[in-house]
Amino acid sequence: MSPKITTELLKHLRQVMKNPRYVQEPVQAYIVPSGDAHQSEYIAPCDCRRAFISGFDGSAGTAIVTEQHAAMWTDGRYFLQAAHQMDSNWTLMKMGLKDTPTQEDWLVSVLPEGSKVGVDPFIIPADQWKRMSKVLRSAGHDLVPVKENLIDTIWTDCPQRPCKPLITLDLSYTGVSWRDKIVALRSKMAERKVMWFVVTALDEVAWLFNLRGSDVEYNPVFFAYAVIGMNTIRLFIDGDRMMDPAVREHLQLDSTLEPEFKIQVMPYGSILSELQAVGAGLSPKEKVWLSDKASYALTEAIPKAYRYLTPYTPICIAKAVKNAAETEGMRRAHIKDAVALCELFNWLEKEVPKGTVTEIVAADKAEEFRSQQKDFVELSFATISSTGPNGAIIHYKPVPETNRTLSVNEIYLLDSGAQYKDGTTDVTRTMHFGTPSAYEKECFTYVLKGHIAVSAAIFPNGTKGHLLDSFARSALWDCGLDYLHGTGHGVGSFLNVHEGPCGISYKTFADEPLEAGMIVSDEPGYYEDGSFGIRIENVVLVIPAETKYNFKNRGSLTFEPLTLVPIQTKMIDVNLLTEKERNWVNEYHQKCREVVGAELERQGRHEALRWLLRETEPLAPVQ
Amino acid sequence: MSPKITTELLKHLRQVMKNPRYVQEPVQAYIVPSGDAHQSEYIAPCDCRRAFISGFDGSAGTAIVTEQHAAMWTDGRYFLQAAHQMDSNWTLMKMGLKDTPTQEDWLVSVLPEGSKVGVDPFIIPADQWKRMSKVLRSAGHDLVPVKENLIDTIWTDCPQRPCKPLITLDLSYTGVSWRDKIVALRSKMAERKVMWFVVTALDEVAWLFNLRGSDVEYNPVFFAYAVIGMNTIRLFIDGDRMMDPAVREHLQLDSTLEPEFKIQVMPYGSILSELQAVGAGLSPKEKVWLSDKASYALTEAIPKAYRYLTPYTPICIAKAVKNAAETEGMRRAHIKDAVALCELFNWLEKEVPKGTVTEIVAADKAEEFRSQQKDFVELSFATISSTGPNGAIIHYKPVPETNRTLSVNEIYLLDSGAQYKDGTTDVTRTMHFGTPSAYEKECFTYVLKGHIAVSAAIFPNGTKGHLLDSFARSALWDCGLDYLHGTGHGVGSFLNVHEGPCGISYKTFADEPLEAGMIVSDEPGYYEDGSFGIRIENVVLVIPAETKYNFKNRGSLTFEPLTLVPIQTKMIDVNLLTEKERNWVNEYHQKCREVVGAELERQGRHEALRWLLRETEPLAPVQ
Repeated sequence: MSPKITTELLKHLRQVMKNPRYVQEPVQAYIVPSGDAHQSEYIAPCDCRRAFISGFDGSAGTAIVTEQHAAMWTDGRYFLQAAHQMDSNWTLMKMGLKDTPTQEDWLVSVLPEGSKVGVDPFIIPADQWKRMSKVLRSAGHDLVPVKENLIDTIWTDCPQRPCKPLITLDLSYTGVSWRDKIVALRSKMAERKVMWFVVTALDEVAWLFNLRGSDVEYNPVFFAYAVIGMNTIRLFIDGDRMMDPAVREHLQLDSTLEPEFKIQVMPYGSILSELQAVGAGLSPKEKVWLSDKASYALTEAIPKAYRYLTPYTPICIAKAVKNAAETEGMRRAHIKDAVALCELFNWLEKEVPKGTVTEIVAADKAEEFRSQQKDFVELSFATISSTGPNGAIIHYKPVPETNRTLSVNEIYLLDSGAQYKDGTTDVTRTMHFGTPSAYEKECFTYVLKGHIAVSAAIFPNGTKGHLLDSFARSALWDCGLDYLHGTGHGVGSFLNVHEGPCGISYKTFADEPLEAGMIVSDEPGYYEDGSFGIRIENVVLVIPAETKYNFKNRGSLTFEPLTLVPIQTKMIDVNLLTEKERNWVNEYHQKCREVVGAELERQGRHEALRWLLRETEPLAPVQ
Repeated sequence: MSPKITTELLKHLRQVMKNPRYVQEPVQAYIVPSGDAHQSEYIAPCDCRRAFISGFDGSAGTAIVTEQHAAMWTDGRYFLQAAHQMDSNWTLMKMGLKDTPTQEDWLVSVLPEGSKVGVDPFIIPADQWKRMSKVLRSAGHDLVPVKENLIDTIWTDCPQRPCKPLITLDLSYTGVSWRDKIVALRSKMAERKVMWFVVTALDEVAWLFNLRGSDVEYNPVFFAYAVIGMNTIRLFIDGDRMMDPAVREHLQLDSTLEPEFKIQVMPYGSILSELQAVGAGLSPKEKVWLSDKASYALTEAIPKAYRYLTPYTPICIAKAVKNAAETEGMRRAHIKDAVALCELFNWLEKEVPKGTVTEIVAADKAEEFRSQQKDFVELSFATISSTGPNGAIIHYKPVPETNRTLSVNEIYLLDSGAQYKDGTTDVTRTMHFGTPSAYEKECFTYVLKGHIAVSAAIFPNGTKGHLLDSFARSALWDCGLDYLHGTGHGVGSFLNVHEGPCGISYKTFADEPLEAGMIVSDEPGYYEDGSFGIRIENVVLVIPAETKYNFKNRGSLTFEPLTLVPIQTKMIDVNLLTEKERNWVNEYHQKCREVVGAELERQGRHEALRWLLRETEPLAPVQ
């Protein structure tokens, strides 16, 4: 792929940074964060301002443009991609490497004295504002909110904000009604003595009201805010989607309801003024609960003394623990997803040797097979279909310029998933359609050992996920190999494929303790730049474990794989496995056979079933 | 042990909390932190204010006294001890348990509206002041500095602050002269653009000047501060110890020196006024570097805009990486220490069956054997000599009331160490002098597996120690067992037995990455309340490792045990070990034989040598 030429755009941006029509005083630097006004990871095209100005369109990154410089901070997943997509106007700041300055420190090092640094107050989270503002101020600079987004002023063909119809989810999917969720939320509010709770994250709004949307690709959410009081419910949402009778019925908008469950629907754009009115009307001791990642603009609407900020909201925490209906839905979704992947891999095995299957063709075929499954809605993220050296680009997405043909000589890595009405999937398998080298098998087997070490780990109730991250690396470390990403993330239930507050990553510390019902991914990898990438990913459910001494009744936890797709045994060097690991693989494959085999049979997919049976033959004994 | 009766003391304290002679306005709560004005872990008797008011004398704990309540926060190591030592006036707040409130939250829940919470500004670290002050303020209370320490006003027989002679350390011990340390420090200051550095931690002052003292038991430090400018050195220290010709010579106090190496000696008590004078004389952009754990009083002496605060000072980080002279000294110290312990365990083996050896006798005997070794200075902490149920009290110290007789029926746990002029030791061995039960052996073997998992771990350069903590727990977790303390701490070189900025603990996150030359302990355990305690502790050195692929030249690290004391094979259930673990034990014991055996031979300690040879026989093969 060739980089985006940004010389003119940057010139234009630097002009508006001094234009009194947009800024009260000229700003010497302008920050373009990744997110939208809801601090979403996946964003709508109209919010892709950082990609517009720089060309780099990975999911994480912050651009800063000064009069002299343009710099982009991103993490290890995107070093290669960002370097490819940006032109020479841009400096890549590799986060996580020792010598890379923070954004604040870099600004201090390049700005002339007494500079103003501008940012859209709706886009920057309050906690980040606070951190940056403090460092800048102590160096004699000022972080200033610029009301009008400066990228929007130069983005002449910026797309419209989407406003698509909503999907209502009944109890068979959600397990709990929105009314009961409101009741539970209010009881958490009462515990903390807060009078108001502001719902700013899109997936939290969707979860709370048992609604889904399609305003953002891959994430079944819709643009909205909510403000929940002890006796009021306000939903800020645009468009005529509230006219849909199914939605009106679901939210009981036309029913006679107790006043505390009556939803007031208000325009999306009125959130700031409404929140300011709430802020102005507070009596002493009346607190307003916000995420500390809510936008600076909304946080400032509440006077400081009345704010109650937490890193994780009560909705985020409740949402993470799946109930029986959600867990069963996730199981069903993963069985259907496995059926689609068995079809795909069976098809690839026949087609790849012909030399006609490109990364894009394979990704499209995967989507085709998934879309044949019941309750399929869309993909849960852009399919990473990568062969050979492209596999080493951790969050690679094939585009025509990079599209490579699969062959019997290269490793193929497929990281993909879907949204079904009953659940969200995310699975990675690494396959070889010819004969893998001893080195490729060695690396694959270490990754597998790490995957098993996490999946089979037993740990006391209340353990934080980050404490399990090293288990996934131990076998790689022993040979001097590692990977530059976390081992797992929370997964939503027909919601965002990445969600907090739990995960398995050395990068986090403030994750919430794991408890039964939480769902995370287990995805160690190994990447050889310029050669190949390996990753083995299952979505796993936290379940109670049986242990001999049960932590003095504290309780024991472990994981159950929800993903049931064969792990290619051809890639395994059995002699590097312990007996326990070999048994794990065989038992896992036995379960794939039984559960997915039955579904393939039921769907009449006999060829894929034969593929499954062959791929799940027990491993040869360890020599 | 019977609890201290504190009814009268608390009454008295509550009176002075309202006495205008000591407080400008009455305070409704008074905080008594653990530390001294240097935030030391081990403190002089005159600084043991929390122990005086409560009776609880563990190394960590914070007392808060309100008009109605008296509460004590401490961690898992001390739950049992604190419960034993405090009377019913006190409520024990078990830190680390889910339902235990923070000090701030508890204060908010018990205080009447608009309360004042007092604390000695010299004793509370600035970061803690900030955190508490913020929470209290947002709940309508005030944290206020109370100049005169209120405990001192009621502590009629408070001992004098010690002021003992100093020891000078030459290059053969320190590897680097104090002048070169000052040069290195100033270069770190220049890098960060700071003009002054304030040395507040006692071990940092001692390390910087290559001096040691004995003002505090176990830690070879002395009461002093230092303020280092780019051209000046000020040492704040009391007493006639600066008259000692050896010290004057060492510090070159009477030599003609370049002005930037001329040390100005000032009274200890003048630090605040001198620092205020520095603060008042600063030009714009002249920053003063302080630890964020320095006292609130000293931090406030520098106007906020001029402060440069970091969690770890450049001295703390430099001190952690031992140079060749220090590493060799540590090796020598550990060999001598092993000789003493071989003598002790040989002696115990003969004496315990007679029923005359108590925990105190055993501890004294350990000290006796250590004191026979060259360059012995003192113990490095209070010996934990514990048998049977006392072993489950993690930081137990035998006193006459609890003193138990060692027997052939109970497990004996000895956690002890010493200060030698060439290094600091800290070792735990768990022994049985009769026949251990199958359950005791099982637990011991899991702890051993954890110990080996850390000790033999291989990891990439730059890994933080906390990421290794779970390795030590994995074998215990598999059976539903755990321990409520971290796995390891940094160890000083003839300095504090606990030092930052590295360690191996799930509780920390902001630890500095491990690098070759750092020294930490590896000490997993298992504790069965009311029955026994097991811990296996070695001090280990971080060293480069050889790996097949060497992390793409990032470099590989592992640990080398410095402690060379046999691990009792009688306690090991060999069938629970892997072949690799069994080999580790045999190789470790082979090294004990060779290195410590040679020293025992040299010292003519033939009986202990025979004991060593017997205890280091290879393990039976795994069945």
